[in-house]
This record gives sequence, structure tokens and C-alpha cells, in this order.
Amino acid sequence: MLSFKLEHQCGNARACTLKTAHGEIQTPIFMPVGTRASVKSLWQEDLEELNAQIILGNTYHLYLRPGHELIEKMGGLHKFMSWDRPILTDSGGFQVFSLSDLNKVTEEGVTFQSHIDGSRHLLSPEKSMEIQKALGSDIVMLFDECPKLPATKETLRESMELTLRWAQRCKDYQLQEHQSLFGIVQGGLHLDLRQECLERLMQIDFPGYAIGGLSVGEKNEEMVELLDNFTPIMPSDKPRYLMGVGKPLDILRAIRSGVDMFDCVLPTRNARNGQFLTSEGPLNIKNKRFEFDSSAPDPNCECRVCKRYSRSYIRHLFNVGEYLAGQLISFHNIYFYLNLVKSARNAIIEQNFEKFAQDFEEKYTRNTWKG
Amino acid sequence: MLSFKLEHQCGNARACTLKTAHGEIQTPIFMPVGTRASVKSLWQEDLEELNAQIILGNTYHLYLRPGHELIEKMGGLHKFMSWDRPILTDSGGFQVFSLSDLNKVTEEGVTFQSHIDGSRHLLSPEKSMEIQKALGSDIVMLFDECPKLPATKETLRESMELTLRWAQRCKDYQLQEHQSLFGIVQGGLHLDLRQECLERLMQIDFPGYAIGGLSVGEKNEEMVELLDNFTPIMPSDKPRYLMGVGKPLDILRAIRSGVDMFDCVLPTRNARNGQFLTSEGPLNIKNKRFEFDSSAPDPNCECRVCKRYSRSYIRHLFNVGEYLAGQLISFHNIYFYLNLVKSARNAIIEQNFEKFAQDFEEKYTRNTWKG
Repeated sequence: MLSFKLEHQCGNARACTLKTAHGEIQTPIFMPVGTRASVKSLWQEDLEELNAQIILGNTYHLYLRPGHELIEKMGGLHKFMSWDRPILTDSGGFQVFSLSDLNKVTEEGVTFQSHIDGSRHLLSPEKSMEIQKALGSDIVMLFDECPKLPATKETLRESMELTLRWAQRCKDYQLQEHQSLFGIVQGGLHLDLRQECLERLMQIDFPGYAIGGLSVGEKNEEMVELLDNFTPIMPSDKPRYLMGVGKPLDILRAIRSGVDMFDCVLPTRNARNGQFLTSEGPLNIKNKRFEFDSSAPDPNCECRVCKRYSRSYIRHLFNVGEYLAGQLISFHNIYFYLNLVKSARNAIIEQNFEKFAQDFEEKYTRNTWKG
Repeated sequence: MLSFKLEHQCGNARACTLKTAHGEIQTPIFMPVGTRASVKSLWQEDLEELNAQIILGNTYHLYLRPGHELIEKMGGLHKFMSWDRPILTDSGGFQVFSLSDLNKVTEEGVTFQSHIDGSRHLLSPEKSMEIQKALGSDIVMLFDECPKLPATKETLRESMELTLRWAQRCKDYQLQEHQSLFGIVQGGLHLDLRQECLERLMQIDFPGYAIGGLSVGEKNEEMVELLDNFTPIMPSDKPRYLMGVGKPLDILRAIRSGVDMFDCVLPTRNARNGQFLTSEGPLNIKNKRFEFDSSAPDPNCECRVCKRYSRSYIRHLFNVGEYLAGQLISFHNIYFYLNLVKSARNAIIEQNFEKFAQDFEEKYTRNTWKG
């Protein structure tokens, strides 16, 4: 099971340590996304070298392929993919609403058709728990309904009520001993709904709470405002996880509000589109201005991509479609995210977070490359 | 320039050391193919870890993209791709005949249309030398005509005569001081033509000789017979390079005949098709029998893929299209090839080559997996 220690606080920003059966996690932390048991283009060795403390796996994808029974037979997700550090799995809820076809929501669960072969499936709270139990992740997420924004308050309340009933069913499911089930707070941009949802989840009692249903259509300022108002009232003695967010500045702002954990596909997905995330903003390696540029992708970066390979070379690799382009950019981008949260943690410990965040943002928005 | 030392011989098989401006090469050697300035799916760090002593770049591809002028401006191919060990570049001859459209051969050279955008280009002996000079490779190949087999002896003779005239023009071109130009022997499966071609190339005088125009349509036994008869009469004090060959057993047989250097896209290309090359023959990871197989791709292999990842996991990665599948299989396959030539070298040094080759072949053709 999980142990949690809040070690330092600077304003609302927190530095904590979580202990799981597969090791410690120092927060704020970014969790690289290994959707189908692989963080795209990276070896597990790369993730270890990058000091990724925890990665994320997707219940929806792993259920469809290769199937949770297969992974269970192979000894669970850790053993299957040869990763012995912590793993968090999502519940599949977000994916059945965003990826699959023809879903139908009932009290029982969600009926959906696979985005791969059109086969029909039911994902329910119990089924999601069964899958995550088979995967053996350290942190399990409850199965929730994820309404898209904008939505009426009425819709959001109904969705929240359903999520709360599902939350109790998840809680009643017996997971493996080493697994911890996190609650997910819904309620859109309504602070009162969020607050009510949190209180009722706390009555069920979870060892950690996530903020779900953000970065799904609302304006960025709306998200930041909600976080600024809501995160500080979450229990201080439990980890706080903002699901699926986000861009570097979003992460920084959420840390300021008191969030501890993050995940996002952006660093690896944008890598495949040729985008480096750098200390001076995003850099699009396809840009013609880098054709003869022998400098490092991010001259301020200490990662081994930036220490060895030039913009000109990586631009060439990307243009001709060499796999190495995506490998190099993904490695750098994950380094960049992990370095961001590590630097934020150090700044919190040194009671210097505001200055750090301002400096980072000022530099990041210079947008020197305009690429 | 190149220095060459024949150190050990076992039958016709040889163990030699080549010295180039970018370091030593111990033969027999396999050169991983980095067509477009990248050995597909591998970092340069991987190649160093695998102890690749020399890699190959393709003149045709690099000329078209990103262009040799760009690479020259960036300091040459070594600096451009951050690889400071030896590089061999081919002449582009093989590719203009096999990849491009509408080629027309004249005394001047070959007119072809790019396979990428249909643009029209002339590749001549001088142009090929100009490109390879700009790339700055350690070993430069002369520009030859590569007829497909089967071909009439008349055609092969005419082609050989043209290649010999082109050879002189290449030799007359002033390369960079550190570069060495190798001759290429043509002549199909005709020992007399091969012998004549070699003698006339030796009159021009090259620091190394390649056997071209094999593995282009003839039967495998025909190639082996030609090599057995021809390789031993090549000058013993110069490196011998068999271009574009081949499968593991082909390489072993060619080493037996006295060949020193090899290149082939097979280990990385087959990796992208899901084929592991193992001590007990090729293994197709797509095969359903590996679905629940927790063993290493090649249980007899010491590479870090085989020490960490299972067939079941890699099969899953391959089936869902994760990049990591190609990365892992490519790494192993290059390890396998480099280990094959290294083991062959050791066996030659220990005067044990025949036994080694027989054992390897016996095991390799067991075909345990039938995959």
C-alpha cells in the first residue's frame, strides 16, 4: 500500500514523497505515458537513465491488446514490460469516451466498440478493477464518467452522481495487496460541484485524489482558475494528481496550486511531429531556418541528445522519416519534463518556487525560435 | 590513408587489421548500413555500445537528401551525424540501377530520375567522387556499372570495360587526404572475366578491392562457387570487401573463401519485419506460438535485449506497431552480426575456423522455431 509524506511547502506548492511496493516517488512528478506497455520510441533503459520514477499504462489499450489475461499470465505489467519501478494505470474511462465508437452509458457501465476492430465490449467499475488488478499497477484509478466541456451544470451533476456510485463499486472490489485505488474528482469548472464530489469521495475514503475532466475543451484560464481555487482545499495529507495535463506552463501553474502528480502524452506525441520542448519555448525542427544550424536543439539542456546531436542533423532525420528523429526528440522531451518537475521540487524545498516559476515562464515565452 | 596488416590465416579465412584516420578495423568485419546517415532505429550510442567498428553511408541517398553540399558545410558526414569511427560510402552506382527510374547509361555516366521527386540527375565517376569527397568517408568506392544477373557474357564484358574506364576516372579524381578509394571487381559468375577485371584494376592500383555484382539474382551456390574460386586469387596484402552480402551463412562461407569486409541491410530491414536472427536460425516474432513465451528472443545471446525482454512482450510491441519493437530487434540483429564476425575472427586466430563454421551452421540450420 501507499505511504505519503508532505515534506516541504512553498505557498501552496508541495514537495512530497510517496512510497509504493515498487519504490519511492518524489513529487511534483511527471509520469511518462506508456499507453501500450511502451513509452513510445524509448527503451525502458532510457527511462531509467532519465530517472523516470513512475510511468503510466492505459487500461483501455492493454485490455484490447494484448489483453489483461495475457499480461497477468506473464506475471503482471511490471514483469511483462520489464519495469520494476512504480506504475499507475488509468481506468479506461477517458478512452472509452474519447477513442471508441458508439458508447452507451448505463448504470452498469459503458458499452463501446473497439477503435481497432469494432468488437463490442462492456467496461464497468468492476471490469476496470479486474483489468487493473490483473495488470498489477501500484496506483489504480477508479472508473469514472468523463463528460466533455462545455456541458450544463445539470449534466455535470448527473455525471458526478454516477461517478460517485461507481466510485463505491470500485472501492468494494478487492485489488491486490500492493495496489492503491485513487479517487477522481469530477464537476467541470464548478467549484461547488468539485467540492461536493471531493467530500463524498473522502467519505468513501481513498489514499489519493485525482482531478479529472480538465483539459477537455475549456479555456486554459478557466482551468487555472479552477485549480487555484480547488487544489488547496484537497486533503493535504494525500497525493493530488491532475490527469492528462499538460503543457509545461500548465504543469507549473498546477504545481503552484498544490498539485503533486502529472501525466501527458504531449512530450512523446509532439516529438513525433518534430517539436522539441526547450527552455525557450517549443522548437519545430522542420523549420527551414535550422537547415544549417549546428547548435544543440536546446543549448541550455544537459541531456545526451542536446550534448551530441545538432538541429541540422535531426532536421534531416525528421525530413527523410528516419525513426531516430522521433527517438531523439522523445528522449529530450521526457528529459525536459522530468527536469521541469525536479527543478520545481528543488525550488519548493529552497522556498524559492515563485521566483523559479516566474523565471521559467519568462524564458519559456520568449519564443526565440518562432518555429 | 589506409594501412593494412594480414595477421592470421586459417585455410583461406583471414584476420586482418585496417587502420584509417578514424581508427582501426579488425576483420572479418560487418558494417551496419546507415543509408541516410542513420542505422535505422539505432542511436550512434547504441552502435558504439555494440562495438560497430565502421558503418556505411549511401552516396545516392545522401546526395538526394539532405545533399552532399549541406553535409560538407556541416563538417562532413562524421561530424554531421556525430560518428567519429570509420565510415565507408558506396558510389551510388548500385542504387541508380536498382532504385531510380529511367536511367540511361552513357560513357559519361548514368542519367536517372530521383525515386523521391522524379527530378533528373547525372551520376558520373567524377560526380560520385565529388559527393564522396564532400561526405569525407574513410573508404570511398569507385563508381561502377552494376548489371543484373542473369546477363550474357557479352553484356557483362561490355559492362566490365565501362567500369574499368570509369575506374581510371575515379582514380584520377583528387579525394581528401584521409580517404582511400577501393576498386570494384565485376564480371558476373565468369571467373575469367573476374580475373581479368581484377588484374586491370590492379594496374590502376587501389588500396582495397571489392567484389561487386553478387547477390543480384544468381543462385546462392553459384555465388559461393565464384567466391571459393575467386577470392583466394585476390591480392593477399589488400582488404577484400564483398558488397551487399548477406545472410549469416553467406557471410560465413565468404569468410571461408577469404573475404574480409561485409555490409547488408538484412539485420535492420528484417527487424522491421519482425525477424530475429538467432543462433538457431531466424525467428519470426509475429508467430502465435510466442504469445505466452517468456523466454529471451535468443536464449543463447548475451545482448541486452535478450537479457531483459521476452518474446511475448516484443511480439505484443510488434503487433500493436510500437516503435520499440523495431528498436529492440534491430539492436539484437546488429549484435548478432557483429558477434558472428567477431567469433569468426577469434576462430581464425585460434586456427579453429572450420570447426567454428560447421558448428555455427549446424546450429543455425536446426531451425527450431520454424517461425
